[in-house]
Amino acid sequence: MDSDLSSTVEQANQESFERICAAQPFLVDVVELREFGATPHDRFLTHSGPPITWDRMSGAQKGAIVAAARFEGWASDPDEVDKLLAHDAIGLIPNHHLNGVGPMAGVFSPSMKVFVVQDRTSGKRAYSGIEFDALYGAYDDEAIEELRLWHGVLYPAIGRAVREAGGLALKPLMAKALTMGDELHSRQTASSALLATTLIPWVLRTSRGDDLSRTVDVLAGAELTFLPLSMAACKVSLLAADGVSRSTVVTTMARNGTDFGIRVSGLGDTWFTAPAPVVETTFFQGFGPADAGLDIGDSAITETGGLGACALAGAPAISELVGGKVADLRAISLRMRDITVGLNPSYAIAALDGAGTATGIDVRKVVQSSVAPTIDTATAHREPGHRIIGAGISHAPLVCFTQALDAWFDTYLDAGDDPARKGESRA
Amino acid sequence: MDSDLSSTVEQANQESFERICAAQPFLVDVVELREFGATPHDRFLTHSGPPITWDRMSGAQKGAIVAAARFEGWASDPDEVDKLLAHDAIGLIPNHHLNGVGPMAGVFSPSMKVFVVQDRTSGKRAYSGIEFDALYGAYDDEAIEELRLWHGVLYPAIGRAVREAGGLALKPLMAKALTMGDELHSRQTASSALLATTLIPWVLRTSRGDDLSRTVDVLAGAELTFLPLSMAACKVSLLAADGVSRSTVVTTMARNGTDFGIRVSGLGDTWFTAPAPVVETTFFQGFGPADAGLDIGDSAITETGGLGACALAGAPAISELVGGKVADLRAISLRMRDITVGLNPSYAIAALDGAGTATGIDVRKVVQSSVAPTIDTATAHREPGHRIIGAGISHAPLVCFTQALDAWFDTYLDAGDDPARKGESRA
Repeated sequence: MDSDLSSTVEQANQESFERICAAQPFLVDVVELREFGATPHDRFLTHSGPPITWDRMSGAQKGAIVAAARFEGWASDPDEVDKLLAHDAIGLIPNHHLNGVGPMAGVFSPSMKVFVVQDRTSGKRAYSGIEFDALYGAYDDEAIEELRLWHGVLYPAIGRAVREAGGLALKPLMAKALTMGDELHSRQTASSALLATTLIPWVLRTSRGDDLSRTVDVLAGAELTFLPLSMAACKVSLLAADGVSRSTVVTTMARNGTDFGIRVSGLGDTWFTAPAPVVETTFFQGFGPADAGLDIGDSAITETGGLGACALAGAPAISELVGGKVADLRAISLRMRDITVGLNPSYAIAALDGAGTATGIDVRKVVQSSVAPTIDTATAHREPGHRIIGAGISHAPLVCFTQALDAWFDTYLDAGDDPARKGESRA
Repeated sequence: MDSDLSSTVEQANQESFERICAAQPFLVDVVELREFGATPHDRFLTHSGPPITWDRMSGAQKGAIVAAARFEGWASDPDEVDKLLAHDAIGLIPNHHLNGVGPMAGVFSPSMKVFVVQDRTSGKRAYSGIEFDALYGAYDDEAIEELRLWHGVLYPAIGRAVREAGGLALKPLMAKALTMGDELHSRQTASSALLATTLIPWVLRTSRGDDLSRTVDVLAGAELTFLPLSMAACKVSLLAADGVSRSTVVTTMARNGTDFGIRVSGLGDTWFTAPAPVVETTFFQGFGPADAGLDIGDSAITETGGLGACALAGAPAISELVGGKVADLRAISLRMRDITVGLNPSYAIAALDGAGTATGIDVRKVVQSSVAPTIDTATAHREPGHRIIGAGISHAPLVCFTQALDAWFDTYLDAGDDPARKGESRA
């Protein structure tokens, strides 16, 4: 790009970056997913990643669909689900198309409860939900029982508590968790404890009996309950950063276990996709590379929003989960600076002497440097019917970013531009 | 020392070190201080640090004595307290002489409640208590009200919960907190949250009404409730390590705001004292060096037990509290290795790629290297009647260690030893 054009893009990207940083995400409610918008189908299920059809779905996502269909009472086994899907009797829609994000398979059904997070700066709302075993593809009775406990008891109790509290500010909680060894994607130990200590006094005021004790027990013992809130907080921040003309800032990175897709602030709703990468996994005992599904989940929204891999330098204990030395984790976080707009002052990493997390992935910088964004993640089985089999890191496919940059040139270099110069700029 | 003697000491020190590492501290009860042993006086008060008389006491400790006397109903103002103390009507005794440890002024009275921690390996028991404003020397109505709330409501509720739970294992909780940015002396953010999430389900089963909601609110909102448990856990570990013949491992470091004292495993109950040092303080707004009292508190038991400054490398966010860069904190923790017996495998520092904390301060190594143990600490006012005025670090006076080494030679080099060699050994 020439310097004028470059300066215009810098300004646009700065605008996207500042909107991300200005977001004030609050957990405001727990509602049924159906409140997030109708679809052409009465029966619909959401899923993580870019749009995908039933026949191309990954094993974990298919398993999660079976679990959700069992939960809704639409079907009782995989064959019935297969028939319904083959006859288009259940619509499939990405969470991102309803302003939501789901961990792993990301499958939610209309009567499932979801957390609602609102950015009090922009007013934008997004949803997300707990990372159930079902979202790794498990659909056995135990997995369905977990769904029933949450949707029947825990989500309603948390909803009452949150409404009684008048909403719960997520940003200060997340900033504090970053000083406590979380990177707010794969490690949510501190944030989940802080969520528990923040919510429990309100649960005490709004629930009683079994509902109270079960909710307190689950919140107090949990280590990953904050994941959907971290994801939804990033999602609302990125919704605010969306739609900035000429901005090359990435506002979505998501995977469905088959495809990896990104969307860009200045390029509308278009997905730029490539095959989902293999996850560099530290496997749990009994599992190995032959069992592993490909990269999956909307949780890459955390890296898109400047957390996860961008904050690894502050989460040394995650090396137990993803392997590697502390110096490697630090290097990953520092490398994210090469491909982002700036450092978010709200999310200070104490281990980097208080520097903010690298935030606002810039398509241009990714293409120019060939540094692919790193993503912290868990690994699902390649077949339906399993639970988590490991954790590790993945790298976004560079081709998504070159496609997006091409589209940017097609969109913003109008007929008046010298075609020769246009060719040069891309080179 | 010659090599035979040196080898004997190494073995003794290894024994002390292993006993520290083998300890399994549990919070087992909450009782009144009087259960920890009678004193020659009906009326007695404990204090931090080595033995001291009323006339030589620091301002913070005098203020804490006034608060405790008010709490017990023995006196209502400083003049009355002064008269009682001047006439020896109230006995003063170091916490350490009753197998206890108190933060800051460390003043506890017979009817005050204390946490009881037991080492399930050695059976040893120790007590400690919450760091009240009174322990900084405040004795106004608000400070007394805090004492009444804790002793009347919160301690009893926690006691019921702990007994119902059958005791609470502190070691795994502390190990986890070390992966969450605590160094378990000045920073107790994670440990206090983990204490809350562990205890609250039991409080829910054993308290009701106002007692329940007040206890849950305080536990859920607290950031320093774990300090006394970290201290008592170290104290029981060091009680187990005590009394090993020939061991030069330090089993007590404590200060009363006037004197700093140490005790050594192989040297019985003898205190080796020197004037308490100035704390290198980051002052809270409105305070400066002219306001500062000298180093105070039994909380240096955490460094004695291999936490606090030994774990600073894993607590980067503490730089906000004590000043300095992350590299400085790391350097402090690494320097503690030069003066300790070994690394405690139970207390892994993720930021040091899982290396254990430097544990078991060796008098010989301190004297030989002239590296004084670093201590994380808070700073009290030099006059009675104030609250916390800052936080920082201090350094144990080297003269305590040279005295102790002299005493070791006096104790263990018998008449048969060549006096000339004895002289050489000390040089």
